[in-house]
Amino acid sequence: MMRGISRFRIMLSCPDRRGIVAEVSQAIAAQGGTVVTAAQFTDPASHQFFMRYEVEEDGVELTEEGLRKGLESGLAQLLDGPNTELTVKQDVQRPRVALLASKASHCLVDVLQRWRTRELPCDIVCVIANHAHMEEYAGWFKVPFHHVDFTGDKAAAFAQVDKLLDDYTVDLTVLARFMQVFPDSISAKRAGAMINIHHSFLPSFAGARPYDQAHARGVKLVGATCHYVTADLDEGPIIDQEVVRISHRDTPADLRRKGRICEREALARGLRLHLEDRVFVYGNRTVIFD
Amino acid sequence: MMRGISRFRIMLSCPDRRGIVAEVSQAIAAQGGTVVTAAQFTDPASHQFFMRYEVEEDGVELTEEGLRKGLESGLAQLLDGPNTELTVKQDVQRPRVALLASKASHCLVDVLQRWRTRELPCDIVCVIANHAHMEEYAGWFKVPFHHVDFTGDKAAAFAQVDKLLDDYTVDLTVLARFMQVFPDSISAKRAGAMINIHHSFLPSFAGARPYDQAHARGVKLVGATCHYVTADLDEGPIIDQEVVRISHRDTPADLRRKGRICEREALARGLRLHLEDRVFVYGNRTVIFD
Amino acid sequence: MMRGISRFRIMLSCPDRRGIVAEVSQAIAAQGGTVVTAAQFTDPASHQFFMRYEVEEDGVELTEEGLRKGLESGLAQLLDGPNTELTVKQDVQRPRVALLASKASHCLVDVLQRWRTRELPCDIVCVIANHAHMEEYAGWFKVPFHHVDFTGDKAAAFAQVDKLLDDYTVDLTVLARFMQVFPDSISAKRAGAMINIHHSFLPSFAGARPYDQAHARGVKLVGATCHYVTADLDEGPIIDQEVVRISHRDTPADLRRKGRICEREALARGLRLHLEDRVFVYGNRTVIFD
Amino acid sequence: MMRGISRFRIMLSCPDRRGIVAEVSQAIAAQGGTVVTAAQFTDPASHQFFMRYEVEEDGVELTEEGLRKGLESGLAQLLDGPNTELTVKQDVQRPRVALLASKASHCLVDVLQRWRTRELPCDIVCVIANHAHMEEYAGWFKVPFHHVDFTGDKAAAFAQVDKLLDDYTVDLTVLARFMQVFPDSISAKRAGAMINIHHSFLPSFAGARPYDQAHARGVKLVGATCHYVTADLDEGPIIDQEVVRISHRDTPADLRRKGRICEREALARGLRLHLEDRVFVYGNRTVIFD
Repeated sequence: MMRGISRFRIMLSCPDRRGIVAEVSQAIAAQGGTVVTAAQFTDPASHQFFMRYEVEEDGVELTEEGLRKGLESGLAQLLDGPNTELTVKQDVQRPRVALLASKASHCLVDVLQRWRTRELPCDIVCVIANHAHMEEYAGWFKVPFHHVDFTGDKAAAFAQVDKLLDDYTVDLTVLARFMQVFPDSISAKRAGAMINIHHSFLPSFAGARPYDQAHARGVKLVGATCHYVTADLDEGPIIDQEVVRISHRDTPADLRRKGRICEREALARGLRLHLEDRVFVYGNRTVIFD
Repeated sequence: MMRGISRFRIMLSCPDRRGIVAEVSQAIAAQGGTVVTAAQFTDPASHQFFMRYEVEEDGVELTEEGLRKGLESGLAQLLDGPNTELTVKQDVQRPRVALLASKASHCLVDVLQRWRTRELPCDIVCVIANHAHMEEYAGWFKVPFHHVDFTGDKAAAFAQVDKLLDDYTVDLTVLARFMQVFPDSISAKRAGAMINIHHSFLPSFAGARPYDQAHARGVKLVGATCHYVTADLDEGPIIDQEVVRISHRDTPADLRRKGRICEREALARGLRLHLEDRVFVYGNRTVIFD
Repeated sequence: MMRGISRFRIMLSCPDRRGIVAEVSQAIAAQGGTVVTAAQFTDPASHQFFMRYEVEEDGVELTEEGLRKGLESGLAQLLDGPNTELTVKQDVQRPRVALLASKASHCLVDVLQRWRTRELPCDIVCVIANHAHMEEYAGWFKVPFHHVDFTGDKAAAFAQVDKLLDDYTVDLTVLARFMQVFPDSISAKRAGAMINIHHSFLPSFAGARPYDQAHARGVKLVGATCHYVTADLDEGPIIDQEVVRISHRDTPADLRRKGRICEREALARGLRLHLEDRVFVYGNRTVIFD
Repeated sequence: MMRGISRFRIMLSCPDRRGIVAEVSQAIAAQGGTVVTAAQFTDPASHQFFMRYEVEEDGVELTEEGLRKGLESGLAQLLDGPNTELTVKQDVQRPRVALLASKASHCLVDVLQRWRTRELPCDIVCVIANHAHMEEYAGWFKVPFHHVDFTGDKAAAFAQVDKLLDDYTVDLTVLARFMQVFPDSISAKRAGAMINIHHSFLPSFAGARPYDQAHARGVKLVGATCHYVTADLDEGPIIDQEVVRISHRDTPADLRRKGRICEREALARGLRLHLEDRVFVYGNRTVIFD
């Protein structure tokens, strides 16, 4: 049987200094890899360097483990510093994703349908919702469903969600209009591995009922923001945003309808960027290699 | 000599009640007018009704004064209530506009050039700036220029600006990136007759240095807001907004450059809407009949 | 039991002449109606006049039939001319809609899900597809499904589709990425009652494989066009269009993925405009009162 | 006196093969350079490889000439093939640009004003127009102006333009709404060094009077296209495009007004991309490293 050419993603973040590109590309070549796509960025304020390479094997067979160890060894001096992180992944890996939802279905169904039609390189392993009627949607896509009741003890409910995420060994949790605020302990535990879609163009209209806030202020565009969840509600690093034009004729209900389009687009784009390892987080900002 | 057909704009705002459209259109017909364009809106929350008609004379010769008096008389009962305002204007009227600027030229030059190429139905009667080098731009367009020094006594400087606006009998004052904050007394005196362009997508990043704020927050779009000036800084009724996509590669200087495009677009569109009497203000919101 | 206030849509298209607005609004008032929203337009080239009113009963009970007859009688002189059409509809009417699809599911599922979540004021009465696997999607939404085989005699297949549309007494046929070209006889029979989504920004890339054409030409934006079906393929009156930015990195498959977003947006917006009777067709152009 | 750090742009285009990145980055390091930004792309169809590096000197002093020779020598084997091109430029170089215009001023004034406010890294060395009144604009910016009469012998007029461009030793010719069609001989001579702004979203509405064509077709968006001039009119490689939404209310004159915004944006963005050496042309397509 034929074996395809393996492709790997190499992500490096470290303080900038002279010669990194030459050093890394030589180490890749020494391991038998050839660079097929490259992107890099240095933040002028913090002088942090970010690099994303896609690498193919060049004649020799490469494994993720082998390539990682080879690079760690070849770049030992570079990697032996503060704020430095190297990640190596074979691109056939499909992250395990859990979707969390409440009442609104538009983001949930959109992500599931994109996944079903192979737009999203991941395995959606479960849907968790605090409203039982979402089970029907999970059923359409034959994804296991869990209803967690948030009407009583919220701490217990969150513990149940957290255990489910652990049991499914999820790599990424997607809050697809999940309307409960995670306790800091879980946000911290899942830092960089939990994505939310907020239904406003942050930082405008953070908090509750953003479309009503937008209507009251009389803005001429509304939007949505896809961001990583952090302890500071609605303050996490932004991955993507989308806006749509509105008018005085639009009621708050119209804003919700028009905003739903932004929500599902910003979420789908942000999710795809994350799944393809195109997002680096630093502080409350992101570097996006799209 | 031939006389063209006169066209008039009729703007009415009043509490909604049954039959207004029939009543107004009959009064217009009784005066010898025919409706050529119509737009109306009732705010569902306040039940305030807004109407904008363009009317042409139908066989008889109409004057602005005659049409206004005729309508005031024919609609006396309708107009005799609270929160009611009727405006009648012949559309050949060209509002007298003053442009105020500081250091940045992009909005000033854009408005002047659109005016010169007959995109904007107004007379630009003067340019006032707190930086003397703006005189060159006013000179290109042969518009009188006044330098007002704001480095010393600001109250005196504002009094000087206010007097200039009075002396020029301006109908509209346009703050084309004028970076001084008007005292409440002048804002109140010129309510609905002073337009500002704010260099952020309000309500995000109100206040000073919005592009630096936007960069620090890591948003993925920046924008600009054209609004009426009120005593509450950056809280006035919004006429138009515009946004542009940015990336992590963009420095605060890049945001300023990209944002300038939004600023001049939002200002030009907002100004045009105002000059064509397409904007109604109610509370801190606007109805726009575009 | 309480009875709500009835609301009606009045659509009028006729050659422009003086006084139409006054005449119509008086006729509406005479029937016991009051105008709640109004929009009108006169095409400067053809002098055709278009008007859309939403009218509520004012004290007396109105029926669609009664209002229509009253207006036809009151406006007899106006209506007794060429190129004149008056339509009166109670807005609780829900048009009967058939969805036609082939292989691609994104438009089909999007329309069905918007309908399920009550975004679209219609009854979707059946799904017809030339690919049998679309049955699963119809099943999710509990909509009757019909597979029509187009691999053999296409004329017979189209006759079968046409009979299904007749049997279901559909008001509107939506081609949700249905990839068979209707014969002229059916297009003509269903003129103004059949909407297509074309996967390019028409008139660019009409015909087959538009995303491959777009890629070959190297454009920097791709789009989609929602239009009425006419005998001239891809030449029908355009209701709405949408575009998205692309780059040299995007393969034809990426264009298809990005374009799908445009397709479903343009289709959903166009469909909604049609269902709310906001679209007038004249020649190969449309007037849209949104 | 202090000497700043020199920065160079290295652009390479060649048939793809294994190891290019490592080879080039080693050659750069060997010359005493360090890579500060990198972008690359391989066209999957033609397997052509494109790379753009920004390089700074790393300890030793670099000159453009020295770096070029060093790389040509170090990469001799790589460069000794078909379809291969290496360019090395110090980024302080400011290309010499000529602007050509006809009657419309919006693109001309916008480019000049962006240049004056230091948005565009070039020297604008002359304005050439076939309408004499454009001299006033050139005068504002103190740029030499040449009126070339096209009402008589067009071939002679083009020869005069060509000679002016030669005399000014221009690196780039920008057709800022210049409405004369260049003969093939000049297009060929200046291939890749002549940019045009076309006032439609190509390939829609190529040829004359695109806004009238767009109005006649009833499209819902109009646009503009910035492209390199080639012998095939309106068929050159596209650098950037922009669109704006329109409605049935917009006359052809309104389309021209709204389109002007697209024209100046697409031109300014395309021009900037070219000046920063971010555009590679292959066939009738472009790779843009923005």
